[in-house]
Amino acid sequence: VTRFVLVAGTTATARIDGISAAGADPELLAHTPSADAELIEYGRLVRAPVAPVSPTGCPTPAAVTRAVRERVGFETLVVDGGLAEPTGAPTVDVGAKPGRDVREPDPVPTAPGAWVAARELGETLPDDELVIGETIPGGTTTALGVRRALGVDEPGDGSVPVSSSLPENPIDLKRTVIDEALAASGLAPGDAAYRPERAVRLVGDPALAVVAGLAVGALRSETEVVLGGGTWMLAVAALVRHAGVAAPLTVATTTYVAADADVAAAATALDCDLVVTDPGFAGRDDPLARYAAGEAKEGAGMGGALHLATRAGAAADVPDETLEVVERVSDAYGP
Amino acid sequence: VTRFVLVAGTTATARIDGISAAGADPELLAHTPSADAELIEYGRLVRAPVAPVSPTGCPTPAAVTRAVRERVGFETLVVDGGLAEPTGAPTVDVGAKPGRDVREPDPVPTAPGAWVAARELGETLPDDELVIGETIPGGTTTALGVRRALGVDEPGDGSVPVSSSLPENPIDLKRTVIDEALAASGLAPGDAAYRPERAVRLVGDPALAVVAGLAVGALRSETEVVLGGGTWMLAVAALVRHAGVAAPLTVATTTYVAADADVAAAATALDCDLVVTDPGFAGRDDPLARYAAGEAKEGAGMGGALHLATRAGAAADVPDETLEVVERVSDAYGP
Repeated sequence: VTRFVLVAGTTATARIDGISAAGADPELLAHTPSADAELIEYGRLVRAPVAPVSPTGCPTPAAVTRAVRERVGFETLVVDGGLAEPTGAPTVDVGAKPGRDVREPDPVPTAPGAWVAARELGETLPDDELVIGETIPGGTTTALGVRRALGVDEPGDGSVPVSSSLPENPIDLKRTVIDEALAASGLAPGDAAYRPERAVRLVGDPALAVVAGLAVGALRSETEVVLGGGTWMLAVAALVRHAGVAAPLTVATTTYVAADADVAAAATALDCDLVVTDPGFAGRDDPLARYAAGEAKEGAGMGGALHLATRAGAAADVPDETLEVVERVSDAYGP
Repeated sequence: VTRFVLVAGTTATARIDGISAAGADPELLAHTPSADAELIEYGRLVRAPVAPVSPTGCPTPAAVTRAVRERVGFETLVVDGGLAEPTGAPTVDVGAKPGRDVREPDPVPTAPGAWVAARELGETLPDDELVIGETIPGGTTTALGVRRALGVDEPGDGSVPVSSSLPENPIDLKRTVIDEALAASGLAPGDAAYRPERAVRLVGDPALAVVAGLAVGALRSETEVVLGGGTWMLAVAALVRHAGVAAPLTVATTTYVAADADVAAAATALDCDLVVTDPGFAGRDDPLARYAAGEAKEGAGMGGALHLATRAGAAADVPDETLEVVERVSDAYGP
């Protein structure tokens, strides 16, 4: 049996101007993970005030994951990776609390405890395979922080694969933020190598601790693990490897991420299998066209869900099913 | 679409000697709701230390509900109705906290808030039908308290339908406890009529508030509601009626409860449809025989799940499927 696990959390890092597009405006950013969880669980919103859209109207990738779930059918589980707003989706608590701005000295004090609790959960879940997704605005920045702290970010030419939910990746801003974050925690790049909980605690976000812990626990009990996501999930893969776990690990992402960052080289360096799926949104004249224009790219396990759709022979149905989910949510809660 | 909702909670009332059989010993009672939730969600235990069994080895009715879920397939949702121990099942939080002993003056201060939050949840859930079950050791006693506070317990001959998880129903003990509870809260029987939140707060338990709130919210949004349980669910029906909701309401229970208490008369008095299902455990020589001997009788939505099994034409498969679930859990966690 395959279970899709969504880890939903928040970090104040997302509030830094220009970092994230995961919400129509900054006030709504903190609701995005709660809304994504509801959308995947119920196919509509329950407690969250608005459906997550980017400032330009790009629908949340959670709509893709939900569409695949409706088409293919899989068990879901939402783990609280530091939610800041209520969600109507049922969640498992592993002790993660919202992350503070990474430029503070100790932004994620709950990381080590959440890692351990998530590892135990991953170890005891009865499934054959976990496909894990994430929803945490600002995550590509904290993922960069973790990779730099572990020292896995500069292979050869010093290029760092960092994707973005924005068409124009604010990579210089992210680098500046992480430089400040490392300095605030007294870390030089690579200082947290083989100390993954420390990397997450000092320059990461709570969802990274939860996903890494879940993956380590699942792999220990011989459950297969697919990390559904882009550069953020590569940071998780790095955390897993730096925790001393060498078991096979798959990263499943979208063509949009693969076009934006050299994820293949990064996956190879971390001894991960990489699966890249095209959701088939090109040439549409509906809100999904925003994806083809380079927005969102990934999130809420979209790449993992697309992998499941492909495996079930249902990939061709995903675009229309996704539009149906998007329209259902928009109808109910206004344009 | 039908969703099965389990409301899982605790009350210190269960610790009164002789009140409940929902755990092998008093220390384990508080783990029973957490374990039941895991069993229904995953088909095995995740965080809970032991599978719930009565002191004589009767397996938890949650095994029946899980068996039906594996056979028929339905969405599930666990709502935290005041859990005292961790669960690995994902839960929705409506603000319910563990109930104190009903003999204290204000044992469930979270009841009014949880009622409102549960009502909003019930109103927004997207389903056509909710089948609601409960797991709260000591619940038949707190349910008696609520019925007496509402004044719905003495029709004609003054008989009170109160079932029990024990073969010999400690009805005199329950009456004594509730007499003390009413006195401690300064209530005479019937004093809380048409004030259902007050009845739950002063002499009930947190799960009663959550199930009643969910039912009221769901009925308001024209979702059908089936209360899967015995005399505890009749107390919920009374709360719903005393909240001024006259919509159709079904109570689905087992033949064991129907043999133990006059639920038909009580259901009629509350204008509820009653569905009684025989799980088919008679004449077995395995742990399920404890049911035929009069133990457990109901719980964890067993009657509601059996109703779903019957509707799907799968009732005949339930006994063997249940035994399989019971054996799976016992194998993993010792005899």
